[in-house]
Amino acid sequence: MNFLASLAEALPQTPLLTGADCAPWVKDWTGAWTGEPMAVIRPSSTEEVSRIMQLAHAHGVPVVPAGGLSGLVGGTHAPDALVLSVDRMAHIHKIDPVTRVAVAQAGTILHTLREAAAEQGLQFPMTFGAQGSATIGGILSTNAGGSNVLKYGNTRDLCLGIEAVLPDGTVLDLMSALHKDNTGYALKHLLIGAEGTLGIITAATLKLYPTPRIRTTGFLACASLADALTTLNQLQEASSDAVEAFEFMPANYMAAYSDLHPTERAPFEAPYPVNILVELASTAPRDAALSPEGVPILQDTFEASLAALMEDGLVTDAVIASNDTQRAAFWKIRESAAELSLHGPRAAIINDIALPLDEIPTFFDRMAVALPKVDAGATDMTVAHLGDGNIHYTVRPTSPDLKDAIMAMVEAEVRDLGGSFSAEHGVGLSKLNSMARHKPAAALATMQAIKNAIDPTGILNAGKVIPPLES
Amino acid sequence: MNFLASLAEALPQTPLLTGADCAPWVKDWTGAWTGEPMAVIRPSSTEEVSRIMQLAHAHGVPVVPAGGLSGLVGGTHAPDALVLSVDRMAHIHKIDPVTRVAVAQAGTILHTLREAAAEQGLQFPMTFGAQGSATIGGILSTNAGGSNVLKYGNTRDLCLGIEAVLPDGTVLDLMSALHKDNTGYALKHLLIGAEGTLGIITAATLKLYPTPRIRTTGFLACASLADALTTLNQLQEASSDAVEAFEFMPANYMAAYSDLHPTERAPFEAPYPVNILVELASTAPRDAALSPEGVPILQDTFEASLAALMEDGLVTDAVIASNDTQRAAFWKIRESAAELSLHGPRAAIINDIALPLDEIPTFFDRMAVALPKVDAGATDMTVAHLGDGNIHYTVRPTSPDLKDAIMAMVEAEVRDLGGSFSAEHGVGLSKLNSMARHKPAAALATMQAIKNAIDPTGILNAGKVIPPLES
Repeated sequence: MNFLASLAEALPQTPLLTGADCAPWVKDWTGAWTGEPMAVIRPSSTEEVSRIMQLAHAHGVPVVPAGGLSGLVGGTHAPDALVLSVDRMAHIHKIDPVTRVAVAQAGTILHTLREAAAEQGLQFPMTFGAQGSATIGGILSTNAGGSNVLKYGNTRDLCLGIEAVLPDGTVLDLMSALHKDNTGYALKHLLIGAEGTLGIITAATLKLYPTPRIRTTGFLACASLADALTTLNQLQEASSDAVEAFEFMPANYMAAYSDLHPTERAPFEAPYPVNILVELASTAPRDAALSPEGVPILQDTFEASLAALMEDGLVTDAVIASNDTQRAAFWKIRESAAELSLHGPRAAIINDIALPLDEIPTFFDRMAVALPKVDAGATDMTVAHLGDGNIHYTVRPTSPDLKDAIMAMVEAEVRDLGGSFSAEHGVGLSKLNSMARHKPAAALATMQAIKNAIDPTGILNAGKVIPPLES
Repeated sequence: MNFLASLAEALPQTPLLTGADCAPWVKDWTGAWTGEPMAVIRPSSTEEVSRIMQLAHAHGVPVVPAGGLSGLVGGTHAPDALVLSVDRMAHIHKIDPVTRVAVAQAGTILHTLREAAAEQGLQFPMTFGAQGSATIGGILSTNAGGSNVLKYGNTRDLCLGIEAVLPDGTVLDLMSALHKDNTGYALKHLLIGAEGTLGIITAATLKLYPTPRIRTTGFLACASLADALTTLNQLQEASSDAVEAFEFMPANYMAAYSDLHPTERAPFEAPYPVNILVELASTAPRDAALSPEGVPILQDTFEASLAALMEDGLVTDAVIASNDTQRAAFWKIRESAAELSLHGPRAAIINDIALPLDEIPTFFDRMAVALPKVDAGATDMTVAHLGDGNIHYTVRPTSPDLKDAIMAMVEAEVRDLGGSFSAEHGVGLSKLNSMARHKPAAALATMQAIKNAIDPTGILNAGKVIPPLES
């Protein structure tokens, strides 16, 4: 019996889509990758995932796990493969306010989990633009980042335990709710960020945090990135680590936003080279209490810090949101990044890079010289999780033919500064060449050895993450 | 030429000890493991470690990496093997106050690194009793814990990058100073906690934090562990996550301490079932400022929280350290754990267990019934990093013959409650049987597959961490 017939026979109740029904899985979110899968199967339980993998293993059929399809590197591109979509595995088993953990299936939408936690007065702090489609399995498989990493860490830092199905169908139960567990190799960490090439994450135990009682949000202007980084250190110290977001936007980003939304009031009248969206948060009632002037104490602290920073010349201008509407308006500027960076007249190159914090100013200095040399007419647009050293540096070349030369130039400079060509988006297919160019050979060989050990027939998300090694 | 002759010829400047000179490496810290190594080599650089492993690989000689020799599970037991001691690789390359990272060789003593950071106004927050001998390589290899995990995480959470030498001598350079890096499998996390069975960690890039400007420390008494956990949640919320330590000691611990130190004043006159050492810390000047009553604001917040908790009946008694001498006296009680638990008339069984937070009360309820059934005369002693769910539950059996039965009973209950038999000490040799009994077969098989892939000839710290698998 052929594979699809065996699958239909073994799992008669499980939706198995073919032909036109596979349309949502044909083209990836960025539009860069298109390909018809062999079929799409939508299991509802870990047992079904296990059964599917047993059959795929027996038949040697390639399988590509898929979640919310909002990845940016072609990680779910599945031409002629079976797509295993976890979208029906979306049950939240537990939100526990005492131990502050959530237990959820992999197909749970990030936004849904955040809402469920909020109903119990808790937050799951991972947040980014695609939270309405991204799944828990997807954010774990890509070790997603976002705007709150500065305070709460990447997805792996928010995960206590996982359950995964290995390429041969074995269920690996690492569903611990423990904060400490030193019993052998960190298999959880190996599967997190492996982009579905070592196992299919089917469920997770996640950390929750008390919801902040008070937030204060401002826009700062600095003369330089070096000043901005000193400002971050001083704000963190002054607030005892209450800074949740520290997002950098240069002058051309602010101008592009104003062009697109001419009726919205910009935070600053003047153009500044360095604009920072800062948000502080606290769960403490004392920070939410009002000062004699009627201002929350946290905002008072923020204002006093800013006054000191301005006196020292580190901050040149600042405005604090005086209400929720203004706070939302500030965040809308930051959240327009995809719109501003990607949706233009010419295809853009997304560079999701990470740098050591002290090398960030040098990076931009070098780009100002190097980019025009490769493409005199290219434009660039930056938005950065500055506190994490994570820069989304988007370049719009004058011709698609220059794409490879520009990417190679950017990555070479990044590597020279001790940085990484993929900070939070992962590798997938889009960054395979970058892996080959910049990852140390010993690391690539070790990854391939692990892949061979766990997936010896290579059926799970084949061809992703690890570039073909020269032999 | 035999192996040692080859080694001496290849590395003539590198100290190579044999015979009586190996004495410090013969017996482990707990005294449970004794064995003469073949020799001890003390390289001074990563290049030397690489050369040693190339030769060991070529000759098929087993190698055991060693640091400060303060491990508790026999992880550096090396009968007839070559001990590779990193003690001479103790250079701190960098302490950077702007990016807040340290770069150090693996042999750097934890206490030395902490002092070097302190000189720059920063802290490396990992701290525990053996910090004067434990090395950076050792704490990474065991993913050490300690008293500040609640706030800062385990060692792996404090590590940005590592350098390691693989079993064949290949140098794996993962020395990133990046806060985000999604370029393939998390090899760093795989090597951290692998107890030297996959590679020898030779250097690391570590996170530093600003030193708290103010601390406030108290002893609390609660009627039950459930009340203590609610108290922790409320203190964390009230202080916006300023709780650095939350350490539990039961009545018999407090009594044993008073017996041992009769001239020291106990925090409480009355015996309480649940005694908690709590410490809050803040870097914020506003928390260090004095209230109108001359008390630091952080202490004021702490006192107000305690008053509310006492009114709600969650805390039954409390005392706050009024000066540094009293704070030191409080910590001395906690830091006497090894003395109180280990140095008694009969050999003690150290159970380093982790539990889901809400199962901790149940665990002690069960022990009160189950322990006397196995050994009616056994005594127990507990000290716990309660906020992490990490319990050091030490049992002193009436006869060493009962050791295995007691350990098996404790571990079975722990497993039944979703816990772990090794929270922070690791596996080494001492917990191999526990691994065989309690770790899922799929996890053990995956670990063995990874071990085989990275160390195919099995020369690196052979026989540790993974129990022999039934075939």
